[in-house]
Amino acid sequence: MTERFAFDIHAKDGKARTGVISTPRGEIRTPAFMPVGTAATVKAMLPESVRATGADILLGNTYHLMLRPTAERIAALGGLHKFMNWNRPILTDSGGFQVMSLSALRKLTEEGVRFSSHIDGSKHMLTPERSMEIQRLLGSDIVMCFDECPALPATDAAVAQSMRMSMRWADRSRQAFGDRPGHALFGIQQGGVNRDLRGESADALRAIGFDGYAVGGLAVGEGQEAMFGVLDYAPDMLPQDKPRYLMGVGKPDDIVGAVERGIDMMDCVLPSRSGRTGQVWTRRGPVAIKNARHQNDPRPIDEDCTCPCCQGYSRAYLHHVFKAEEIISSMLLTWHNLQYFQQLMQGLRDAIATGTLAAFVAQFHALRAQGDIEPI
Amino acid sequence: MTERFAFDIHAKDGKARTGVISTPRGEIRTPAFMPVGTAATVKAMLPESVRATGADILLGNTYHLMLRPTAERIAALGGLHKFMNWNRPILTDSGGFQVMSLSALRKLTEEGVRFSSHIDGSKHMLTPERSMEIQRLLGSDIVMCFDECPALPATDAAVAQSMRMSMRWADRSRQAFGDRPGHALFGIQQGGVNRDLRGESADALRAIGFDGYAVGGLAVGEGQEAMFGVLDYAPDMLPQDKPRYLMGVGKPDDIVGAVERGIDMMDCVLPSRSGRTGQVWTRRGPVAIKNARHQNDPRPIDEDCTCPCCQGYSRAYLHHVFKAEEIISSMLLTWHNLQYFQQLMQGLRDAIATGTLAAFVAQFHALRAQGDIEPI
Repeated sequence: MTERFAFDIHAKDGKARTGVISTPRGEIRTPAFMPVGTAATVKAMLPESVRATGADILLGNTYHLMLRPTAERIAALGGLHKFMNWNRPILTDSGGFQVMSLSALRKLTEEGVRFSSHIDGSKHMLTPERSMEIQRLLGSDIVMCFDECPALPATDAAVAQSMRMSMRWADRSRQAFGDRPGHALFGIQQGGVNRDLRGESADALRAIGFDGYAVGGLAVGEGQEAMFGVLDYAPDMLPQDKPRYLMGVGKPDDIVGAVERGIDMMDCVLPSRSGRTGQVWTRRGPVAIKNARHQNDPRPIDEDCTCPCCQGYSRAYLHHVFKAEEIISSMLLTWHNLQYFQQLMQGLRDAIATGTLAAFVAQFHALRAQGDIEPI
Repeated sequence: MTERFAFDIHAKDGKARTGVISTPRGEIRTPAFMPVGTAATVKAMLPESVRATGADILLGNTYHLMLRPTAERIAALGGLHKFMNWNRPILTDSGGFQVMSLSALRKLTEEGVRFSSHIDGSKHMLTPERSMEIQRLLGSDIVMCFDECPALPATDAAVAQSMRMSMRWADRSRQAFGDRPGHALFGIQQGGVNRDLRGESADALRAIGFDGYAVGGLAVGEGQEAMFGVLDYAPDMLPQDKPRYLMGVGKPDDIVGAVERGIDMMDCVLPSRSGRTGQVWTRRGPVAIKNARHQNDPRPIDEDCTCPCCQGYSRAYLHHVFKAEEIISSMLLTWHNLQYFQQLMQGLRDAIATGTLAAFVAQFHALRAQGDIEPI
């Protein structure tokens, strides 16, 4: 296992790339989908089960963990990996996004964001320096710069002002991060849906220099068309030899479109959250398990899926336990969803490696167009 | 694997016995603790995990399953074992206890109980004949007679009247059950805490003849002393060569006392329910994981326990995920509790087999008297 952070691209197909990110805690096959373990757990899953779905890396949330159980407590207990029993790579976000969407009484200044906890009202301050400290205390393998992400739509002037502060924060993050062999710091491109601002942001980040680059500020309500519009040019503005991470994405068709446009890493709560609300993702599209059409159906969600949910349980059973609000419903549907997402990533990686991405994507859309199997 | 139901006692120590119940679906080591899978799931556990704790048999609830998803639906889907992905023995209760404790607008007559569902208000009738039909549709391996269980305290006259109707229902249950090779029908002794009525009930059941006998009507609020008082004589009234099942018991010290008094089978929601409310059972007694004393504690619940919860997670982590209301808290604590209960049963079986039950019980009580490990 390597002692340093590295990214090797093994193959390209169009703009899409497949490769491996090496870290001291293990390899990450790209394009990679990262399940979200907000509060030191991927909800309704044991970590060995998350690994069994094919995940190489998890995402942890700085905002949630700094409030409960606190970064200092996790550090005293040996770090986030040991705390949550996951010894492979972890990427932590900076807290910047959640502090703006979840906290109360927040006040944004050049220094950072002062806010009250949504859990107990306690007062906190997040700055680039404090975010770097928290992510170091957690023991994160891939650390994200502290940034501000304005909600869209916003005026160009507002997006520009926010982006430029985020670039100043990126510089402060880089200074505060220092030199930590084996750990990576990623910059985050902002600029909304404005090409010039995206370019300005990319130039600022490249001038600072990072181990990887995120395309930030998307998947915040702008819609898939606008997001793909940005992804048609934004990744090209970032260094070709570093990982490109699209934050908070997404649905399977978002993922496919992002990979086609040169994205190497993604994360989203969708598969786990959907698992708890009874929405199942399959190669034929989404399935609502609460629908009465499933209540007598002896077939699995997907007869070709190898996950424990599809191997052991009928749609009728899953419908029953969902309606009865049994915990096993969240456990099984989350497992299936996470495994489907990882199977999709493996399909994308294999297709890029063999130069057959276009055919893979065509088949992906054709199967979804057919929709779910007919009721019996 | 045997094609018929059988019980072989391998060793005795005082009144306690250890042996094996053989069924076409597998063997049940006795004394046995049966986890409860009320709505076709042991809450927060996958069935393979329940098996990994050491469980040989589960209990299913007729009342819950008849209402949702219905016995007819489960039968059409291949039976309860296939439905819930558990291919080992299942014992189903008769619905008699839950219909009196959970349903609304119930009316008790000689024929049976008419009631409204607590889920949707729909009208239903449970009789000995209907209970046998439902348990047959579910595919239960061990079927319980339909009985009435009066809440204690009650007058001797009320207990006697109820017991005698239950004995008439036992006769109707036996008639309705018929001859089903490989499936067992258990009678249920009633009579409250009245020795004469317990004797009359036992005589009535023996006259009918069953594959096993439950001591019913206990663990309904009478307290451990009164329960042990009945168990000092009630099991002796039942056939020596058939399994004796104490329904709805219990806490670890209840289990130990019942086994000492000749009980072979028990069931209780306690380990799984406690797992969801943060009460952890250990050889040193109960532990409340929500207590702040655990929040910085890097030690597992029990350093000698081999369950995944104790092998992978600190008390600090379990405290955190319990406070954060994460599903993994219920998953891990339920697993530990179920495994502790099964480890206790294995200890009891080994002690009886080697004639060392008294020493085992003394050690059991001595460890509990010490209490939980000191905070760090």
